[in-house]
Amino acid sequence: MRRIHVIGIGAGDPDQLTLQAVRALRDTDVFFILDKGEVKSDLTQLRRDLLRTHVPEGTYRLVEARDPERDRAAGGDAYSPAVGDWRSARAAIYERLIREELADGERGAFLVWGDPALYDSTLAILQEVLDGGTVAFEYDVVPGISSVSALVARHRTGLNRVARPVQITTGRRLAEGFPRDVDDVVVMLDARQAFRRFADEDIDMDIYWGAYIGTPDEILISGPVREAAPRIEEARAEARERKGWIMDTYLLRRHRQGD
Amino acid sequence: MRRIHVIGIGAGDPDQLTLQAVRALRDTDVFFILDKGEVKSDLTQLRRDLLRTHVPEGTYRLVEARDPERDRAAGGDAYSPAVGDWRSARAAIYERLIREELADGERGAFLVWGDPALYDSTLAILQEVLDGGTVAFEYDVVPGISSVSALVARHRTGLNRVARPVQITTGRRLAEGFPRDVDDVVVMLDARQAFRRFADEDIDMDIYWGAYIGTPDEILISGPVREAAPRIEEARAEARERKGWIMDTYLLRRHRQGD
Repeated sequence: MRRIHVIGIGAGDPDQLTLQAVRALRDTDVFFILDKGEVKSDLTQLRRDLLRTHVPEGTYRLVEARDPERDRAAGGDAYSPAVGDWRSARAAIYERLIREELADGERGAFLVWGDPALYDSTLAILQEVLDGGTVAFEYDVVPGISSVSALVARHRTGLNRVARPVQITTGRRLAEGFPRDVDDVVVMLDARQAFRRFADEDIDMDIYWGAYIGTPDEILISGPVREAAPRIEEARAEARERKGWIMDTYLLRRHRQGD
Repeated sequence: MRRIHVIGIGAGDPDQLTLQAVRALRDTDVFFILDKGEVKSDLTQLRRDLLRTHVPEGTYRLVEARDPERDRAAGGDAYSPAVGDWRSARAAIYERLIREELADGERGAFLVWGDPALYDSTLAILQEVLDGGTVAFEYDVVPGISSVSALVARHRTGLNRVARPVQITTGRRLAEGFPRDVDDVVVMLDARQAFRRFADEDIDMDIYWGAYIGTPDEILISGPVREAAPRIEEARAEARERKGWIMDTYLLRRHRQGD
């Protein structure tokens, strides 16, 4: 039987690997690395470095493939179907990789930034491949430190306040309005800086923002969203220009009377 | 200057420590362990085992103190003030420990189950001690694998669905109703099994439940909440009886037309 590890490798700091992840890395015969193209080749390099650090050379094979292009231009209602198409294209690639590159009895692995449970499609894609019925395998999941955990640790704050909830959502959702019934909101995948709309409103809200968290390029900015938003916009544009890509996350904390 | 590490040690599996956490453990002169009394002495023992495994003997001191009693009987509106009183009592203990047991230039550490960012009071208490002005120290936070991440990894599912939000909340909140505008909800600190109310309703909802996740006592149950709820109730009562305490978490996933 083929076996696959889906390994959360943390948000960028190589020391955020767990001992369980290191064990899974060393248990792996074939690593599948999907390259999103030159823009994110830094990330591919970081994964190669991780393997070099933790796994004895000569004990594994590296199989690289090109990620399918994703139609990011599709907005609004078209978003989910576009994701669906992209996911199916990716499933076809995964299916071929597992069938052709992993022998019976071998162990393969996909390395996932952060935690495979949060805004990552690997688990759903593997299930789609299994459902297709053309190749059989078992798989397990190694949880990782998410960019959400890494963000608030660097800011030395919690995600929730006493006895209160926290919501994790996307920039696209936040652009539709601040979620109801919750005052602590973590935003991921926000290419459009949806937080800016709250900078102009007369509300008491703090932001804790971070980019490239846990790497030498890390940037952290926090404060009342009114004051911090312009600083974040500037730092974000500068970093994106310099590196060619950006990965950022933030927590919005709304204060109410009595807090 | 005194320095303190707040170290997330994962949800129960000792292999869920990160390399960064191991490094912080080895950098520590004094570990502060607060005992909640005999009921949870299993957890205190797990922490001692963790130190024995990862830190050379003779390189650290262990300082144990008794946690203040928390008035868990206080319900409804009384909840937050009761937490506030308890937190202040705890801050007084932390203040004394840091002032009396940690010498200038030494490093202390608090070990936190899961991730210090999620439903844990250590960061807020340390800030309260600092604000008191009676003892000065620096502190940093090492993020950990939360019980939330560990739960869904064991169930091999994600926290969110494509482009949709996830909310993390308490049993007390869930008892007031399913959160609005979100279909994936993780529930922590639920002593009253608030999920049961959804078992009787005619809604399409799955539950992914786990107790003692990552330990030899781990129990996992999942399925439509209607079918799984009685099984969880039974398993939970039996385990609680046998061990004297329980730590459990669950994800509720509501399905809508078109999912």
